[in-house]
Amino acid sequence: MTYQNTTAVRQGKLPILTTLPQVPPFAVGLVRDLRVRWALEEAGEKYQVRLVDTEERQQAAYRQLQPFGQTPAYQEEGLDLFESGAILQHIAKRSPILMPEGEQDSARVTAWMFAALNTVEPHVLNLADIDLFHADQPWAVQRRPALEEHLLKRLGELNTWLKDRDYLAGPFSVADILMATVLRSLRHTDLVARYPALNAFLARCSARPAFKRALADQTALFAPEAAPAN
Amino acid sequence: MTYQNTTAVRQGKLPILTTLPQVPPFAVGLVRDLRVRWALEEAGEKYQVRLVDTEERQQAAYRQLQPFGQTPAYQEEGLDLFESGAILQHIAKRSPILMPEGEQDSARVTAWMFAALNTVEPHVLNLADIDLFHADQPWAVQRRPALEEHLLKRLGELNTWLKDRDYLAGPFSVADILMATVLRSLRHTDLVARYPALNAFLARCSARPAFKRALADQTALFAPEAAPAN
Repeated sequence: MTYQNTTAVRQGKLPILTTLPQVPPFAVGLVRDLRVRWALEEAGEKYQVRLVDTEERQQAAYRQLQPFGQTPAYQEEGLDLFESGAILQHIAKRSPILMPEGEQDSARVTAWMFAALNTVEPHVLNLADIDLFHADQPWAVQRRPALEEHLLKRLGELNTWLKDRDYLAGPFSVADILMATVLRSLRHTDLVARYPALNAFLARCSARPAFKRALADQTALFAPEAAPAN
Repeated sequence: MTYQNTTAVRQGKLPILTTLPQVPPFAVGLVRDLRVRWALEEAGEKYQVRLVDTEERQQAAYRQLQPFGQTPAYQEEGLDLFESGAILQHIAKRSPILMPEGEQDSARVTAWMFAALNTVEPHVLNLADIDLFHADQPWAVQRRPALEEHLLKRLGELNTWLKDRDYLAGPFSVADILMATVLRSLRHTDLVARYPALNAFLARCSARPAFKRALADQTALFAPEAAPAN
């Protein structure tokens, strides 16, 4: 879990997950490296963590790896990658637990990956942004009801889809990792709990041993003295 | 361009692009079916258009194809698909113009696809939403400067990346289709024009014959009496 020299790790052949050295308490358990950790745990793969501070993320060398200076980034022998969706898609190629075989089945999983990140997450983050950073602003008070309404429409549609399904696209897949981690950013609200099928889906995902290991590892890094994580 | 019976089209083996029968003038040239049309034009593939009205999009049958009732959706023999990002990724698999061979090269294209849809588009749409639908609201006046600042940060990072590149990930790829169509939603502003490399990138993408054909076809459907499209 300590800072790793990239060259040395590459020689050791372990994938490198690049993430932040620390985050504020509200973000522990929500940082997007959780998605990558979870996928690697499901796939049964070991990995190394490399930490990048704010200063390094501004530098040109890091921008070659991650053009927006964000985390996570991911490296393995012969491959540099950014964007959690792309990283998960790459990892999923080598794990039938994450990505089913067959063109229709894998295409449906891909559709749900994009749905999590492009149809659901923007609405989740708009609401979380208000609640966590701007709750007292006059504009936020005026705007929040409409943002919540937009989000509830999406959550309701997702709930309908999940009424007779355990996971989004048949068996558990990498799409569920993305959707579950997107929904976790609403943990400060009761919005998911209003939808029984959606709530059960999130509980089902969160009960997976691979998720628990990933969350424990993120919590140990970002909040080593924290109470049991959730 | 007329409504097609799905079964008949499937028998004809042409892919089916499902989109809206009409949109307001401000949306002509921005609807996401443009991405699919453009990709198919680049790949040299013919397709059929199927139109779904608001009522049909609420029905359970359509929700089986598109769980959120959105457009576009895409069908070909043995495959139903939704989310423009997933549709483009599927089409790209059979076209070297859209997706390069080689694991690192294709992974980088995938990273830029997700970057367009998850890192850039949410900021673009938050600003466009204010400008197009809420410009006179007190909350919008208070909120807009910060949203523009967030967006300009992303556009500046994108501009830096494009300074010595014609396209996002080497040669033209499906990632450029997504990023260019995302940036088009800022056409009511001068924000892209402030960044020379970004502006040149968008001009370069828009000059492609496949884009022009796709845009002309969308315009012919949504605004058949319109002046030359842009």
